[in-house]
Amino acid sequence: MSVFTSVTEPDLAAWLQNYAIGRLEQLQGISAGVQNSNFFVTTSLGRYVLTLFETMPRSELPFYLHLMAHLARHGLPVPAPVANRDNEYLGTLSGKPATLVSRLAGRSEMTPSVGHCARIGAMMAGLHLAGMSFGRRQPNPRGAEWRRDCAARVRAHLPPDQQAELDAELAYQAGVDLKALPQGVIHADMFRDNVLWDGDFVGGVIDFYFAGHDALLFDVAVTVNDWCAAADGGLDPARSTALLAAYAENRPFSDTERAAWPAMLRAAALRFWLSRLEDFHLPRAGEMVLVKDPDEYRQILRQRARATAMPALPA
Amino acid sequence: MSVFTSVTEPDLAAWLQNYAIGRLEQLQGISAGVQNSNFFVTTSLGRYVLTLFETMPRSELPFYLHLMAHLARHGLPVPAPVANRDNEYLGTLSGKPATLVSRLAGRSEMTPSVGHCARIGAMMAGLHLAGMSFGRRQPNPRGAEWRRDCAARVRAHLPPDQQAELDAELAYQAGVDLKALPQGVIHADMFRDNVLWDGDFVGGVIDFYFAGHDALLFDVAVTVNDWCAAADGGLDPARSTALLAAYAENRPFSDTERAAWPAMLRAAALRFWLSRLEDFHLPRAGEMVLVKDPDEYRQILRQRARATAMPALPA
Repeated sequence: MSVFTSVTEPDLAAWLQNYAIGRLEQLQGISAGVQNSNFFVTTSLGRYVLTLFETMPRSELPFYLHLMAHLARHGLPVPAPVANRDNEYLGTLSGKPATLVSRLAGRSEMTPSVGHCARIGAMMAGLHLAGMSFGRRQPNPRGAEWRRDCAARVRAHLPPDQQAELDAELAYQAGVDLKALPQGVIHADMFRDNVLWDGDFVGGVIDFYFAGHDALLFDVAVTVNDWCAAADGGLDPARSTALLAAYAENRPFSDTERAAWPAMLRAAALRFWLSRLEDFHLPRAGEMVLVKDPDEYRQILRQRARATAMPALPA
Repeated sequence: MSVFTSVTEPDLAAWLQNYAIGRLEQLQGISAGVQNSNFFVTTSLGRYVLTLFETMPRSELPFYLHLMAHLARHGLPVPAPVANRDNEYLGTLSGKPATLVSRLAGRSEMTPSVGHCARIGAMMAGLHLAGMSFGRRQPNPRGAEWRRDCAARVRAHLPPDQQAELDAELAYQAGVDLKALPQGVIHADMFRDNVLWDGDFVGGVIDFYFAGHDALLFDVAVTVNDWCAAADGGLDPARSTALLAAYAENRPFSDTERAAWPAMLRAAALRFWLSRLEDFHLPRAGEMVLVKDPDEYRQILRQRARATAMPALPA
């Protein structure tokens, strides 16, 4: 469950008086999400989502909120932060940093088709293109440096065979220069459960709280690893091809990116193997983290390192 | 019909390459609106409306587009202009100033209930509250000065009894000081056909091209005159009361506004009697204006001047 801090209707009704969206009609907790408390809020003028930030420092939030606002302003289906009467996105409610965003239509699709994957490729390219005119910067919080540091933290908790695999992958990745690839703002966590579908259209991409600047191709790799994985962790050729072709139609890949693609799929797999290992072995006090199986991403990393039948980036 | 300028699919597809919303999938003309050419545009990432401005000067458009963007950013259901990759809302297509906005859900309701009128009151208050932090200014293009000038233009075309009515109303309005009332950005044309309904919710308020700064109460009067009129032009008490109560719940009326209310209903009726007389007697060359019956608003003005059973503004 994901309501760690409670909000009363009178408190919310009073808080909403500094907005222009009418009167509170309904407040309902949402049982999804692992870092924040989320609520559906209905007013006389519409349907919104209220988020109370439980663990993220207030100073880090403007980057994410302004990024979502920027992408929404470019016509992309993402939650649009709602400005209050002081023109601010961020307020305080029940003692926590709090924001309202537009409520998006649709639900997640955990068994995506080739058609879904094509839409996702177009959506990711749209995020990358619109992000190029976004003025704020922060590094990918799960970038290369974090991966090295996290590996050092979790290594001692692993059996010898996994330590060897981790060492080998770190040595391989040490030779990869992500900085040589086209850079930009990346979502960095566009998994199937972070996308809502409204019929055949992307109704919304949510959860921008891992976004930052890094190689755009790293974002593509994170997404392909999740959306196009077969049961054995290998890549489904039809779904991978559809996602990459739709992306390239909107932002063509460079030669440097084509050369770096196999390494980038491995870097993206490593990032999630590591975070899942850390959540499993080193859970943080006071955080309600939904622990996901690290072995799923160990297996995906093995498959990417094997690299048989790897779909190439389109020319 | 409302496609005065044609747009080809190849031209639009090329134009969309400076946006981040994917590839063109469908282009369809819209047969509504009298000043601009409008099209439904579907891309791989969503559904939008394309507007080509046929008669409005390019220099006047940023006020309207930034106003819509400001209101959308405050969580209100209005068309949100889509920024292109240069971060601009306004471009050029088929030789005309052109903009893309989000496509809103719903359809107009020409026989509104008491419940609809309450939503409209809340929506209008939301527009006025959010508008207070909008930085750009332009006067109401159909304000008191325009009404005097327009009366001078149409007077000679009227029969003597209507000239006498017009003279009497102008003399009455000359004693009314709109500047003494709370001011702000007003929509100024929130008629039933400019509101889309998404179930019980306002899906969207459209057509901001008469917006400007004026007495907020003038906007309320324009809206009440349209949404709450009975068949004889008189005000339906239940609908009027619901609209005004919902407005006041979000922005309470002042004593000055309560005193000015009957005069404001007449000023708002006069504005539409005049513009309809002008469209009828002095049609502008090259504009395809849908001529509406001036007598409907002459009758509404008579009813407001009579002022029997006038619903008062809530205390």
